[in-house]
Amino acid sequence: MSDLVVVATVMQTPDRETLEVLHDAAVVVRDGAITAVLGPADPGRAEALAAATEVVAIEPPAVLVPGLVDVHLHASQWPQLGSALDIPLEEWLFQHTFPLEARFADVDFAVGVWESLVSGLLSEGTTTAVMFATVHEEATVELARVCGDLGLRADVGRVAMDLPDGTPEWYRDASPSASVEASHRSIQAIEALGGGRSLVRPIITPRFVPSCTDAALTGLGELAEATGVSIQTHCSESDWAHGYVLDRFGLSDARVLDRFGLLREHTVVAHGVQLGTDDLDLLRERGAGIAHCPLSNAYFADSALPVREALDRGVGIGLGSDVAGGFDASMLRQCATAVTSSRMLESGVDPAVAPTSRGRADARIDTTAAFWMATLGGAELLGLPVGLLEPGRRFDAVVLDPTSPGSSITEWPDLDDDARRFERFVRLAGRADVARVWVDGRAVVGDHATLQSR
Amino acid sequence: MSDLVVVATVMQTPDRETLEVLHDAAVVVRDGAITAVLGPADPGRAEALAAATEVVAIEPPAVLVPGLVDVHLHASQWPQLGSALDIPLEEWLFQHTFPLEARFADVDFAVGVWESLVSGLLSEGTTTAVMFATVHEEATVELARVCGDLGLRADVGRVAMDLPDGTPEWYRDASPSASVEASHRSIQAIEALGGGRSLVRPIITPRFVPSCTDAALTGLGELAEATGVSIQTHCSESDWAHGYVLDRFGLSDARVLDRFGLLREHTVVAHGVQLGTDDLDLLRERGAGIAHCPLSNAYFADSALPVREALDRGVGIGLGSDVAGGFDASMLRQCATAVTSSRMLESGVDPAVAPTSRGRADARIDTTAAFWMATLGGAELLGLPVGLLEPGRRFDAVVLDPTSPGSSITEWPDLDDDARRFERFVRLAGRADVARVWVDGRAVVGDHATLQSR
Repeated sequence: MSDLVVVATVMQTPDRETLEVLHDAAVVVRDGAITAVLGPADPGRAEALAAATEVVAIEPPAVLVPGLVDVHLHASQWPQLGSALDIPLEEWLFQHTFPLEARFADVDFAVGVWESLVSGLLSEGTTTAVMFATVHEEATVELARVCGDLGLRADVGRVAMDLPDGTPEWYRDASPSASVEASHRSIQAIEALGGGRSLVRPIITPRFVPSCTDAALTGLGELAEATGVSIQTHCSESDWAHGYVLDRFGLSDARVLDRFGLLREHTVVAHGVQLGTDDLDLLRERGAGIAHCPLSNAYFADSALPVREALDRGVGIGLGSDVAGGFDASMLRQCATAVTSSRMLESGVDPAVAPTSRGRADARIDTTAAFWMATLGGAELLGLPVGLLEPGRRFDAVVLDPTSPGSSITEWPDLDDDARRFERFVRLAGRADVARVWVDGRAVVGDHATLQSR
Repeated sequence: MSDLVVVATVMQTPDRETLEVLHDAAVVVRDGAITAVLGPADPGRAEALAAATEVVAIEPPAVLVPGLVDVHLHASQWPQLGSALDIPLEEWLFQHTFPLEARFADVDFAVGVWESLVSGLLSEGTTTAVMFATVHEEATVELARVCGDLGLRADVGRVAMDLPDGTPEWYRDASPSASVEASHRSIQAIEALGGGRSLVRPIITPRFVPSCTDAALTGLGELAEATGVSIQTHCSESDWAHGYVLDRFGLSDARVLDRFGLLREHTVVAHGVQLGTDDLDLLRERGAGIAHCPLSNAYFADSALPVREALDRGVGIGLGSDVAGGFDASMLRQCATAVTSSRMLESGVDPAVAPTSRGRADARIDTTAAFWMATLGGAELLGLPVGLLEPGRRFDAVVLDPTSPGSSITEWPDLDDDARRFERFVRLAGRADVARVWVDGRAVVGDHATLQSR
């Protein structure tokens, strides 16, 4: 007995060096979980197909891939996506971003944005998202509710920021205790949504050290210890942010987070471009990891993350769109950008510098590693049983169909092998190719979806 | 009297610092040329609409933009698009690219690829393309024919490459004279296609100095002088290519091209990452310019082109996809990448380098400059009367419709001004948003198109 069997060519990355392609695989799903993945000759396949309530056959050249995991985005910046990036950071923050975030005091406005965001992410093939909401408790809980209703797996955090320096008077928590208490209440409210909404978890969200008082950071660390809820924040994103924390504490950003009890298992630190090797080792020891945001880093981080080095040191890493510092919500596009960015880091960028000192040796990653970060790597960082289509994991999956209208992919059956086809999907598939999406066994995009993609 | 009036919101860039938005503009087209662009209150508008054979009303939020100009791509590498970029250059060239190009000796194979390519480019909104074909005369002339038939404005060049070092025995011209003569015959054959096919011009195409003998370069320079046909080639693309020419001639790549009479008005040199300031000035003096290929440069050029500096020195610059060294045929995506690449050049990429010496000051460009390069900048480099919707130019234009299925663009009427909407189109529009395309007044994508987009 099963609810669903999906028969398809599966492409996935069980580790960051391995592309696994399963032709004509039957993925058996019961109560949202994968119970078996059966090849054409595997025993029990005919019985599994016969016993299924629903059988979906995905015809080549379409493929089935694990749902995409976005480990860092700012939900409230969704209306800014793709715009306002040609201006200085200070202007971006104080004239565009903070005023926009402040509008989420209006719950009706908030819900309109959340519904657009969540349906948009699902339509891009994102099945898990780790999100900063805003400082507002009500808007934050509404975001969690919308994720649950529309079927997006999500970690949703109320943004804590209470330090007057660097935050506007009209958009910050009133005091350290107000900051911690509001975060606590938002955790309870999100957990109380309960019912069929266990897809969504709260997450403790200090914006970053430069916008939080010591007292708030202390309280949030204690809140994490008391509740067991995990943590997201920014860490060593840019020269300024990295230097600010060094100046204030005489310690690196990662050490400071750790001192406040904020570097724990599954803590997601976004960007981390300026993390030193000691910091990377500390993250690994704590079970924390990095949200690698290659596109956003090009605009706001002053450097590229040496992601290959961080991977080689055993640090957990997922990919983040960083909507809207990153202008593209597509995690496949982020994969492509992660590869491109790593190539630019390896070669260097300035032709006036001698080749021998221009770049950083052995910095490149390939599309397999990038896709792994966008699926299993992110899932492992978050401690979620998704990211790979194998028995025991939840069924979060995406059909990419290059015959869809608007696809930029042309297939060349005589020339292509599986590796080239995979590389092309990762580099060129976009929203137009996303034909079906399931989260936790529920169809959320495509035929029979409760959510209609636009 | 006119054949066509298109009423729409026009977004375009008359210079690289100016976004021009014309609301409710009526673009009047006769015999493929724009005869007037009339605002709502302009005299004669009602008469122009009444006298038109066809009126097309483009409703907001869709916009009309000039057709996109791709000044550098390798037509024969179309089947490789998006694949085989995770491997070393040598392997990419000798195990994938040259063997693929060699297959175009088979004209049936060639025509199949050309039809896919040309319809694909039009569907991405590319209305002009400057293309390397292969060494084969017949395949090259067929490419020109297919462009004319399907309605793509194009410069099509037979690839000349005759130097045994660095080219495989099974894919090169037999001798310098064979190389020049075959190029000459391909020019005559393309010009003889004539008739309604004046959209397509031949272009003289030495692959690059490292694959050509002195005798062939001399002969091709003389051929340009004798025929007036313009030239495309690669120049100072990478450390290796730049250094090779210095070693062989004791002169820079640009000086060598000039010595052989190949740096002329409208000569397109691709990449040019290693061009010095003297080289840039020489290009400007000759009326030659650069095909800036930001995505491909990340993989093959060892550096980013300092494009802002080249623009500031007055060098003509267009954008090139460099299919398939660049993995994306969308010129809008190339615009977004050009901006991102310029930001990475400005900030630098390696966090281990001190901020003060990491990047290159004042290197950034914005989306307006990038779009200008992809339209008017490219058109001026090629000497073609396109790239801007104004009277006297040919009507090459694209409708971008963010309400199309598969679009990644969400509109926020209460939050957006024209500049933010433009930025979002440039950064996020893709093939799914390309709703209609006209080239030379002929509908080639969308309703009433003679070519159906897939």
